[in-house]
Amino acid sequence: MSLAVNHISVDCVVLGFDGEQLRVLLLKRVGEPGGQEFGDMKLPGDLIYTDENLDDAAKRVLRELTGMSNINLLQYKAYGSKDRITTKDMKWLEQTTRVRVERIVTIAYLSLLRISRQLAAPPVGNEVRWVGLDELGTLAFDHNILIHDAIEAVRRHADIDPSYLFNLLPHKFTLLQLRTLYERIYGKAQDVRNFHKKISQLDYVVALDEHEQGVAHRAARLYRFDRKLFRRARR
Amino acid sequence: MSLAVNHISVDCVVLGFDGEQLRVLLLKRVGEPGGQEFGDMKLPGDLIYTDENLDDAAKRVLRELTGMSNINLLQYKAYGSKDRITTKDMKWLEQTTRVRVERIVTIAYLSLLRISRQLAAPPVGNEVRWVGLDELGTLAFDHNILIHDAIEAVRRHADIDPSYLFNLLPHKFTLLQLRTLYERIYGKAQDVRNFHKKISQLDYVVALDEHEQGVAHRAARLYRFDRKLFRRARR
Repeated sequence: MSLAVNHISVDCVVLGFDGEQLRVLLLKRVGEPGGQEFGDMKLPGDLIYTDENLDDAAKRVLRELTGMSNINLLQYKAYGSKDRITTKDMKWLEQTTRVRVERIVTIAYLSLLRISRQLAAPPVGNEVRWVGLDELGTLAFDHNILIHDAIEAVRRHADIDPSYLFNLLPHKFTLLQLRTLYERIYGKAQDVRNFHKKISQLDYVVALDEHEQGVAHRAARLYRFDRKLFRRARR
Repeated sequence: MSLAVNHISVDCVVLGFDGEQLRVLLLKRVGEPGGQEFGDMKLPGDLIYTDENLDDAAKRVLRELTGMSNINLLQYKAYGSKDRITTKDMKWLEQTTRVRVERIVTIAYLSLLRISRQLAAPPVGNEVRWVGLDELGTLAFDHNILIHDAIEAVRRHADIDPSYLFNLLPHKFTLLQLRTLYERIYGKAQDVRNFHKKISQLDYVVALDEHEQGVAHRAARLYRFDRKLFRRARR
């Protein structure tokens, strides 16, 4: 019965929506201990510095990765299972961080990002990619679990604050995009007619006098989310 | 820019409701480095063991404290600010745990408990008390902040799952108790008539053919929460 000396990391699940599916921002893992290739992907994350708070560490990771500092961030869960890191992953960590690692407790953060936002060039040697949730494969560490839990956290948060999901949409969007987003988040098909009826009752989803441009099919009407009207409706 | 070696602890905010106010389960802090008295109170918590997961550590703390193993537990936030622990508190920790402490990241858990439940005798030297939220004073570490955030977490959770608050009530309760509980959780007065109307529309709050016993005022009708009906209503 001894006490654990641990390292603390933050990991960031940055979600985007391309109109069809949800995507998550992943880094290609680099480093080859013993000539072994780590070709897999991981969430952006890092050990925290001595002089750094948890939230600040998460902000730093995202800033270094995207060049942005004004990203919404939600701390949603801490992971501390002693077997969450395999021996192989442990070796990689010790090589890249040059510290002796016993266990890493990670604090997971969630961020919703418009996928159209221009990302800064990533640090040299890093490759950043928006990967579809259906195409994740097996990620490094327990990052598949972190992403799974992040979607649940999105649902919980959106139940309390329905404006939350609009962070994932372009400023002008079609009802098809909005409905598809709901279907991806909640994992089930939405009846078109009921959905349109539901949305038409929300006065903060405002129909514009504009339509899609340059599409092969019949151009759909565009809508926008009005935060002022939303705040008024919630009062 | 160095990496922090940290300790991980869990702290448990156990909330109860006595019909009048919310109470939290606190421990009197013991230990006197340098003859100094630590007469203040703290949340039940502990450093995690090497072979222990976060959730298991929280369960252990509560089991040791209350003798119970079937308590609802909700992980709600991680605290890692580097200045969350004063020098004085740090000394106490190093004395009682006999480890060199650099920073402690704590994972906070929330538990709702019927205040009538019989607690086991606490470990020798410990004094456990249900302290009213209005009578906390200044607690050890940043535990006032943890408790404040716990109430917010209760609200968030109850917004998603209205059955959550019934964990705080006796099996049979009056509408006055239920209304007072809402007022304490949400921090504002509830209009009596609107509240009764709202509750009468919830078929899972079932009126009994029983009244309070042995009260000086007019005995009020008793109600109970029906989980089966609740589940059906939510489907």
